[in-house]
Amino acid sequence: MPELTAQPLTTEAFQAFGEVIDTRTARQVPINYGLTTRFHDLATVDVVGDGARVLINVFRSTPITLPHAVAVLERHPLGSQAFIPMGTARFLVLVARGETCPDPASLRLFVSDGLQGVNYARNTWHHFQMVLGAPADFLVIDRGGPGDNLEEADVSDLDLTIPARAGEIS
Amino acid sequence: MPELTAQPLTTEAFQAFGEVIDTRTARQVPINYGLTTRFHDLATVDVVGDGARVLINVFRSTPITLPHAVAVLERHPLGSQAFIPMGTARFLVLVARGETCPDPASLRLFVSDGLQGVNYARNTWHHFQMVLGAPADFLVIDRGGPGDNLEEADVSDLDLTIPARAGEIS
Repeated sequence: MPELTAQPLTTEAFQAFGEVIDTRTARQVPINYGLTTRFHDLATVDVVGDGARVLINVFRSTPITLPHAVAVLERHPLGSQAFIPMGTARFLVLVARGETCPDPASLRLFVSDGLQGVNYARNTWHHFQMVLGAPADFLVIDRGGPGDNLEEADVSDLDLTIPARAGEIS
Repeated sequence: MPELTAQPLTTEAFQAFGEVIDTRTARQVPINYGLTTRFHDLATVDVVGDGARVLINVFRSTPITLPHAVAVLERHPLGSQAFIPMGTARFLVLVARGETCPDPASLRLFVSDGLQGVNYARNTWHHFQMVLGAPADFLVIDRGGPGDNLEEADVSDLDLTIPARAGEIS
């Protein structure tokens, strides 16, 4: 397996994995007598299972160091998980398809431009949040309630490396 | 009715109206092999009615000018509505209790310190988002789906004014 090649995050390229969250392309509705613009319904919140509820959280992420050896991917069988940058930090998004484990041929590495967020569709394999250079906060909307909502897959045998300059494309 | 007097936003003082959202007092969970802190479950998302779903939105608010004459309060009978600052803008929070219309004796005016967000409990009367000085973005988690989720009450006869220096307390 060669080094992963990063590509810009676009709605089309990310479609098999979830949604790109971006006010710049969202439906805009003027409200509050014109004083507020509502960027409406930016992502599909999808939570399932008895007692499911929607959680609002903040994730504060420490930067990873590149090159980065990918050891584990994770997925959430009971809910989508949305990450919305609270600042303008660029971040990496590594995703894969796969029913029981990540399919190596489906792996894709994306770079957010710092204004884009992502919503991982339920059951989509993904790497944990990877920020570069400085700590960054994200608003995270995901699923709470009973049930096991975390699966992890050891992918260290694929020998995947995120290269040193992966964050530089845009 | 005299001028409204602003007070700092605290969990205790706001309890009758909803929740204060604040990472500084939230439960912190280390995840992602110690690289991320999860500030967990910051507010209660409460949506009801057939076909209810949770929406993720961004509100971009233009500042109001103080003093501000309060004309209308609103409430959402089918869902809570959370506002989380994406920056550090201070904002005003005007709320009231009341079954069919706002009870003047219950009116309270709060000031967020810019890191605090609020989650208006379902059916809580509130003024639309009031930012001061500069435009500001908020992540808003509320309710979508069929049904009428907006009630407005004309309160202009109460002759309420938010005074010029309401935003200066902390």
